Amino acid sequence: MLQQTVQRIDELDAEAMGKARDRMDNLIKPPGSLGELELMAVRMAGITGNPRPRVGKRSVIVMAGDHGVIDEGVSAAAQEVTGQMLPAFVNGVAGIGVLARHAGAALTVVDIGVAGEVHVPGVLQRKVRPGTGNIAVGPAMNRDEAVAALEVGIAVAVDEIEQGSTLIALGDMGIGNTTPSSAILAVFGGYDVIDVTGRGTLINDEVLENKRQAVVRALEVNKPDRSDGVDVLAKVGGLEIAGLAGVILGCASRRVPVLVDGFITGAAALVAAAIAPVSKNYMFATHQSAEPGHGMMLGMLGLTPVLLAGMRLGEGTGAALVMHIIEAACRVLDEMITFHEAGVADMEEDKLLK
Amino acid sequence: MLQQTVQRIDELDAEAMGKARDRMDNLIKPPGSLGELELMAVRMAGITGNPRPRVGKRSVIVMAGDHGVIDEGVSAAAQEVTGQMLPAFVNGVAGIGVLARHAGAALTVVDIGVAGEVHVPGVLQRKVRPGTGNIAVGPAMNRDEAVAALEVGIAVAVDEIEQGSTLIALGDMGIGNTTPSSAILAVFGGYDVIDVTGRGTLINDEVLENKRQAVVRALEVNKPDRSDGVDVLAKVGGLEIAGLAGVILGCASRRVPVLVDGFITGAAALVAAAIAPVSKNYMFATHQSAEPGHGMMLGMLGLTPVLLAGMRLGEGTGAALVMHIIEAACRVLDEMITFHEAGVADMEEDKLLK
Repeated sequence: MLQQTVQRIDELDAEAMGKARDRMDNLIKPPGSLGELELMAVRMAGITGNPRPRVGKRSVIVMAGDHGVIDEGVSAAAQEVTGQMLPAFVNGVAGIGVLARHAGAALTVVDIGVAGEVHVPGVLQRKVRPGTGNIAVGPAMNRDEAVAALEVGIAVAVDEIEQGSTLIALGDMGIGNTTPSSAILAVFGGYDVIDVTGRGTLINDEVLENKRQAVVRALEVNKPDRSDGVDVLAKVGGLEIAGLAGVILGCASRRVPVLVDGFITGAAALVAAAIAPVSKNYMFATHQSAEPGHGMMLGMLGLTPVLLAGMRLGEGTGAALVMHIIEAACRVLDEMITFHEAGVADMEEDKLLK
Repeated sequence: MLQQTVQRIDELDAEAMGKARDRMDNLIKPPGSLGELELMAVRMAGITGNPRPRVGKRSVIVMAGDHGVIDEGVSAAAQEVTGQMLPAFVNGVAGIGVLARHAGAALTVVDIGVAGEVHVPGVLQRKVRPGTGNIAVGPAMNRDEAVAALEVGIAVAVDEIEQGSTLIALGDMGIGNTTPSSAILAVFGGYDVIDVTGRGTLINDEVLENKRQAVVRALEVNKPDRSDGVDVLAKVGGLEIAGLAGVILGCASRRVPVLVDGFITGAAALVAAAIAPVSKNYMFATHQSAEPGHGMMLGMLGLTPVLLAGMRLGEGTGAALVMHIIEAACRVLDEMITFHEAGVADMEEDKLLK
């Protein structure tokens, strides 16, 4: 299934993008004056194959999983919090509950790897294993488990799309999950651990040092192969990271745009791009997280965020907020009229920068 | 009326802000993890006096005016375009028409100073004079006209608020209006003209040079007094800039938040802050424009934008887009629950940065 999904991912539709760009350049505004919105709308045309794309039904998919590396003292929250948050998610009273509702998005919460037995009505039970192994001492999971978790994500995405979703935002929940995300960034980016390991929920110096040591040991012990996305995922990743990478691949295989949120979904995006480089074309960056490594990730993916609000919550909160802006970009392209249609004098070309 | 409005502008409600901050800090998320959204919600509490503020009815107010300085060859568009755009605004097919509708906002378009006779159904006729004088050779308007234009803005704002508006975004239309805005920024900021005069709609080097010369001469000829906001406005401002400064004062006097858009509304905000410094507390920055001087303006006002999308259209387009985010901030504060209410273990304080 993973293989078939990857093979199905195709290039953007150049003809639809060309038509969208032509229309955008003739709308009653100075050329380029809507900045990133123009690029968003044109890429939406390329993704969907529709030169005047619209955003319809939309979904936020939150994947939840636990992390054995919590044993290294890398987090300010207890592991139980991952499971404890799930009722707040499905009841709409956590950050993403509020912001998904505000975005008009359905919220799907998936237990793909929460530690212990957690049965919360409304949470999709797709547990691959109850939390990862401690990456500071061994692999997070084996390769079969990584593939299974990727396929959970693909299946959840395809299911949302078959129910009509036209825009999907990625969200994560997992105490300790900035640690494997830092490891993933270090592997794919070739960065020093000290540069990619940040304070997450604003941990103090002692916890930060534990976290850095854990990432250093994770890389030494596991020796992930950066040319093999699944290997990196299995050795130093996480179950929710795998599921989210699967969601990206599922979206890209069905020509549906997918919104990257913060540092953890950014790590999932790096994994998806390693498995299927063309999947990058289906991703939109949304906000730039306060976590320092997030900007490095977006740079590696060639994505530009539009919201810079110092957010560091995860859960898909930044991505949910930007759904409104992506929709706005499409509406501008579709609903504005051209200089010609409006009977408004166009700019004098000889006075503009070439 | 101007005097009375200014006297009515009061400090933020510290008690409501304290309550909002307490609640925000106890919601189920790491403290501070919603970044600027948290600050927005708390300031909304201070503005409205409600510790759990909500955004209800909302408006975009676009002020349109012309500029005599167009004679200096400072723009790539003809002066007629200002008036020609008005039907597209009221018919909802210009940029702000689409984005106001997307924001769920009513759009009020005011002819406060368009050149010539323009009668467009649906446009509020509040013309103070048909365009400004050429600031490169004399004042934009006399002091009485500046006060009259400020009072038009106050009256329009108060009218919107009395009809139930709870959030007001500023928009501008006026071919050539980045030129007086650059002059205003140079005066209040004490900057060199070369640093504050940008390419607007991406004018070429020749037009840019005309524009810089016009600003230099505007300052030499008029000698605006930076300690007197109305003097600066009358000498090197614009009618729509005056009207928008009036809208800000009107909003602040009624404790209603007002959203600054790009470079021209930023100039209006500098004028309002010069007339009534406390009015800054009622302003929100929204996006950072691609026009270089805009960041300087926001810095002078102590405001932080959240949307960085390289937009340079004006019309209130960036401000309209951010209405959704301000509303999100208020909904987070009101609709998320606390750690205690959720039965979720709080962060371990001794592991967090103090």
